[in-house]
Amino acid sequence: MKHIVAVEQFEREWVLSLFESAERMKSVKSSDELLRDRILATLFYEPSTRTRLSFESAMLRLGGQVVSTENAREFSSAIKGETVEDTVRIVAGYADGIVIRHHEQGAAVRAAAVSPVPIVNGGDGPGEHPTQALLDFYTIQDELGQLDDLKVALVGDLRFGRAVRSLALMFRLTRNVELLFVSPAEVPMGDDIRHALDAAGVRYRDEPDLGKALSVADVVYQTRIQRERFVTQSEFQAAQGIYVIDEVSMGLLGPHAIVMHPLPRVDEIRPEVDLDPRAAYFRQAQNGVFIRMALLHQLLGS
Amino acid sequence: MKHIVAVEQFEREWVLSLFESAERMKSVKSSDELLRDRILATLFYEPSTRTRLSFESAMLRLGGQVVSTENAREFSSAIKGETVEDTVRIVAGYADGIVIRHHEQGAAVRAAAVSPVPIVNGGDGPGEHPTQALLDFYTIQDELGQLDDLKVALVGDLRFGRAVRSLALMFRLTRNVELLFVSPAEVPMGDDIRHALDAAGVRYRDEPDLGKALSVADVVYQTRIQRERFVTQSEFQAAQGIYVIDEVSMGLLGPHAIVMHPLPRVDEIRPEVDLDPRAAYFRQAQNGVFIRMALLHQLLGS
Amino acid sequence: MKHIVAVEQFEREWVLSLFESAERMKSVKSSDELLRDRILATLFYEPSTRTRLSFESAMLRLGGQVVSTENAREFSSAIKGETVEDTVRIVAGYADGIVIRHHEQGAAVRAAAVSPVPIVNGGDGPGEHPTQALLDFYTIQDELGQLDDLKVALVGDLRFGRAVRSLALMFRLTRNVELLFVSPAEVPMGDDIRHALDAAGVRYRDEPDLGKALSVADVVYQTRIQRERFVTQSEFQAAQGIYVIDEVSMGLLGPHAIVMHPLPRVDEIRPEVDLDPRAAYFRQAQNGVFIRMALLHQLLGS
Repeated sequence: MKHIVAVEQFEREWVLSLFESAERMKSVKSSDELLRDRILATLFYEPSTRTRLSFESAMLRLGGQVVSTENAREFSSAIKGETVEDTVRIVAGYADGIVIRHHEQGAAVRAAAVSPVPIVNGGDGPGEHPTQALLDFYTIQDELGQLDDLKVALVGDLRFGRAVRSLALMFRLTRNVELLFVSPAEVPMGDDIRHALDAAGVRYRDEPDLGKALSVADVVYQTRIQRERFVTQSEFQAAQGIYVIDEVSMGLLGPHAIVMHPLPRVDEIRPEVDLDPRAAYFRQAQNGVFIRMALLHQLLGS
Repeated sequence: MKHIVAVEQFEREWVLSLFESAERMKSVKSSDELLRDRILATLFYEPSTRTRLSFESAMLRLGGQVVSTENAREFSSAIKGETVEDTVRIVAGYADGIVIRHHEQGAAVRAAAVSPVPIVNGGDGPGEHPTQALLDFYTIQDELGQLDDLKVALVGDLRFGRAVRSLALMFRLTRNVELLFVSPAEVPMGDDIRHALDAAGVRYRDEPDLGKALSVADVVYQTRIQRERFVTQSEFQAAQGIYVIDEVSMGLLGPHAIVMHPLPRVDEIRPEVDLDPRAAYFRQAQNGVFIRMALLHQLLGS
Repeated sequence: MKHIVAVEQFEREWVLSLFESAERMKSVKSSDELLRDRILATLFYEPSTRTRLSFESAMLRLGGQVVSTENAREFSSAIKGETVEDTVRIVAGYADGIVIRHHEQGAAVRAAAVSPVPIVNGGDGPGEHPTQALLDFYTIQDELGQLDDLKVALVGDLRFGRAVRSLALMFRLTRNVELLFVSPAEVPMGDDIRHALDAAGVRYRDEPDLGKALSVADVVYQTRIQRERFVTQSEFQAAQGIYVIDEVSMGLLGPHAIVMHPLPRVDEIRPEVDLDPRAAYFRQAQNGVFIRMALLHQLLGS
């Protein structure tokens, strides 16, 4: 695999092998110089500091170096009419790999089509964010020791949440998993994802009762309700308040289950939950570094 | 000491030991790798390029690496409702230490309360900027060879100037120092600082005559009058023009005295003074790197 | 040569020696550590990501380190009244060399006048961008093996195009070169450049027929027509459409000739040309890294 642009690319064997590599990355240090003499460019057309810092930390821990911009929009198409393709060809002369974040769906695919160096999609508008899906999936493996035979509750904004939509697709690579969709009526899981799951034989059902979902779930994946998706403030607040994880929720959850969240969170997981050992969301963020180390090592290693 | 958030933390023995370390840092090179395999995150919620570059230069000279953002505001509370606490927990997964600069007083203390890695306060709004106080204090030691038995003139905006207020507090760690407050009537030294000095037995007095202050001072700490503090342009210009250091002023100053300034300066020290060997302000800026090297080495060294 | 601020500084022997160094730089790796323990500051008062990343990639490949800002404007004169001179004196305490990009003509010269460390002009408003001229000139040498005995067509906006104006001046260092100026009537090559070429004995002529120019040229240097230079949109579009390099143009061009462009390009070179081996513009961008490595090595090497 030369470029990482979409969840569609991933196959079970490749993913499991990547997770083994991520596991080994936990003890890798810069001075091991796994990517000595390699430079990564983080080419961000919109700020996404979390994603950018995670990739940059990963590259530095591999002994590589980074050149970086969150201003890519200012030196390209928007200002002077340059295409993403031209920009990527130029930056490929400066670096051995490029992480691209773009506001337009499909930008990463276009970049990969012309790039002489590996391209990693760091999120392209409403499109894909494949490394987020990988780190979420890895967290389940890392926390529970398994990816099969699970009940997974996906909670919150399932309609617009890019991360949760991509994660749902990852379960096509598993066996005997049941997905429970717990969402406000305004933001249900889309039919496109349902059809893809049907085609892969993944079971799912809508479960509007969060309590019921919690009592059976091995994994709870909570998401933020996005204010900008609602027409009125009151509709937003109504939707936001429905599904909240708090101490009471944690009482319903099994002792070996985990709570995940792509972050940032607002009120949908109460701060009191943070100290519960089943709260896995900060470990999940940390896993992003190990997954990205594994990916960069595979793409840029000699 | 795990975190550096406030001047209140500093004790004399610790400060003197840090200054010895800063002295040694003058000859340290990246290739000595004192902080090999360490990553520092500079998490800036508002741009402060001077402070950021100083910390980053310090980290690189120690053989460490840096991930950096001046856009922290865009990926956190202001935009999506994330708290500083959450952001810091996430960034702590990417880096071994965090320098935080924030527009809200108290943000660094809140960060330190939850962070598993050392936090350094790089300035929190009208609050503290403790590494500036350390580098200012170190410059006196470095230039004069002593911290005790001095007369120190603090000049300019003593009311709102964060740096000069913090420096005043540092003299609680000294013996037989007298502070002269030379300020326009609109921006006197605050009562909170005066009370703290009283409690510590540090002598001070208001001295509206700059010439008199210069003729006895060992250290002159000049500051910028901040335009935004005045209601009218004419009031500002009146206050700005009162206390200016020029060639005439330098004629009043003793041969072994020094002139300091936290920078940037506008007109309050004339360019003609720059070539005078007693003009210590650019050496002072350079000292920021050595002090920050010493701090980072103490906090992040194994 | 301590600072690189203007094309006027360059002499033939120095340039040829730099090009030999650039050639060697193609095989240099970070781990060769040619600039071990050196830090470069990229001090950009306006974003120019292409130029900045090119310099930073060069520095990292030399085994050095980088501190960087595109926010210099926010911590200096524009906001608080600090001069470029003061800023440079401070940053010189953080780094061993400074690349400065500024919106005001002459800023680099002012920086160089006070800086204790080498200054490289990364573009100062409508003024100079000397490293662009060097990399363009080097590309001719690299692609054709010679700098003398050439016919060079300069095409497009010759009036405001900073890169093409500087390149024209570089031919004063060559022998038996003829320049063909192919420009819309609104944006001809300026008299200042013509006089400088006259004084150096460089032949030139206006050639409004692009086809004729292509049929004799060894080098075609195409440039972008800048929208902001025209009063009306229709005038701009008329000027933009006159001189376009497409497949038909390439049919007129000799088999050993090359097409260059400082980039970004919009429509003035059609994408279909990109695959032609005579399309040298992406290799030209890559050469920027090697030229900047050679420069930084000369300025910052021990």
